[in-house]
Amino acid sequence: MPEADFSLPVRVYYQDTDAGGVVYHATHLHFLERARYEWLRELGFTANSLIENHDALFMIRSLEIEYSKPATLDNLLSVTVKVTHVGRSRITLFQEILLENIKLVSATIHVVCVGVATLKPVSLPMPLREKIGNIK
Amino acid sequence: MPEADFSLPVRVYYQDTDAGGVVYHATHLHFLERARYEWLRELGFTANSLIENHDALFMIRSLEIEYSKPATLDNLLSVTVKVTHVGRSRITLFQEILLENIKLVSATIHVVCVGVATLKPVSLPMPLREKIGNIK
Amino acid sequence: MPEADFSLPVRVYYQDTDAGGVVYHATHLHFLERARYEWLRELGFTANSLIENHDALFMIRSLEIEYSKPATLDNLLSVTVKVTHVGRSRITLFQEILLENIKLVSATIHVVCVGVATLKPVSLPMPLREKIGNIK
Amino acid sequence: MPEADFSLPVRVYYQDTDAGGVVYHATHLHFLERARYEWLRELGFTANSLIENHDALFMIRSLEIEYSKPATLDNLLSVTVKVTHVGRSRITLFQEILLENIKLVSATIHVVCVGVATLKPVSLPMPLREKIGNIK
Repeated sequence: MPEADFSLPVRVYYQDTDAGGVVYHATHLHFLERARYEWLRELGFTANSLIENHDALFMIRSLEIEYSKPATLDNLLSVTVKVTHVGRSRITLFQEILLENIKLVSATIHVVCVGVATLKPVSLPMPLREKIGNIK
Repeated sequence: MPEADFSLPVRVYYQDTDAGGVVYHATHLHFLERARYEWLRELGFTANSLIENHDALFMIRSLEIEYSKPATLDNLLSVTVKVTHVGRSRITLFQEILLENIKLVSATIHVVCVGVATLKPVSLPMPLREKIGNIK
Repeated sequence: MPEADFSLPVRVYYQDTDAGGVVYHATHLHFLERARYEWLRELGFTANSLIENHDALFMIRSLEIEYSKPATLDNLLSVTVKVTHVGRSRITLFQEILLENIKLVSATIHVVCVGVATLKPVSLPMPLREKIGNIK
Repeated sequence: MPEADFSLPVRVYYQDTDAGGVVYHATHLHFLERARYEWLRELGFTANSLIENHDALFMIRSLEIEYSKPATLDNLLSVTVKVTHVGRSRITLFQEILLENIKLVSATIHVVCVGVATLKPVSLPMPLREKIGNIK
């Protein structure tokens, strides 16, 4: 897998764990979302700027996630983002959650850009498409 | 404390617990919210009907919560609702979380009715005020 | 897809939604977990009985989830469970989240039975295997 | 109120918001927890070091929280921690959530140090007591 476009450090707190002593499986999706929005912020876009300037928001259409090793309390994780495909209204991302370079979780996320009111697919905002094109 | 107006059974799953092996403290607020909305539903109101018919939603202004005993995986909790004060736009509720009649958590919740767009206090919808008056 | 083995009603509250006005994507995994544990309960097993009687717990190895339509506030969802494959230590489940028979979400969940202390794969508890065999 | 002992920046994502368009009330407790554990980390303690070196963990006994203004998507919040009382096994903390120096939320949190297995109150670990004494 080629190098990630972006990586976000995420600390594990009690709120992220469950009685099995590990990070709850759905909480990893929260970590992945944080990394995606910080990556967008680095490209110059926020959740609100997408809504206000482009009448657009991203919805997840589907995702596949694989849990290889558990994350635990106090871990300082690295959550990566890598664009793997860009369509007219869709983006596919490959994301990993790592602990000291060991892969704990990997996921492929299919997001679609939709209109704020309609929730129907719209073309990706051109400035975002240009930025994503540049970093690939 | 007088008898509760309403009680909702709530099961504890892994998603509700933390690595300490007990229900995460903030998750009890989720349980309390579920009971409040099922109580409203029993009175004939839903979150959406309040918005659509009365341009109103409830926000929490403040709350005090006391954790007496932990709740754990598989527990079937009872979450109660008792109205203790009704003002022009405010309602104070006393809520408990019980396991087989043993009190685990108690909370006093101060909610305020606000306009959907303004988020400013508005009078309680009259039909709701009448229902709450009846059950006191 | 053959009929589900089990279905759990789940109500949508504010806690389950996000600022997009719909159920947050990761929250659907919480709904799916609730249905899996209520299905296990119907078969005679709880999270704690698996730990105490069988030194076993279930971890999710991987999952694929597809979001077809959004769920919203006040929705009363049906969350289904269907066993599609049973291995020595693994179970594959197909789950759907429906609103009035319309599919909102579908997921394939690969779980593995692990020892409580080791978190290494162990054989499924025989009584559970027998129950699952019976219902297929 | 005297100056805080510690402050943590926290970004608001979709996962933190609800269909009312603001941060869900219980999620603020998650933000407060993150600040408490980063403050402990700055003092030289982690959740795991408290368990392993001192057989101790912190449970919340009670809390009061006041919501003055809503937090919204993309906000970069400051979450503060201030010790206001130290007892034999108890600590009282005053915490605020601020947006550009405007107070959104304030809370008083009563935590108790308990033994890991017993969950019964134990004396605060001496090294922690000394650190907290120093910063007051």
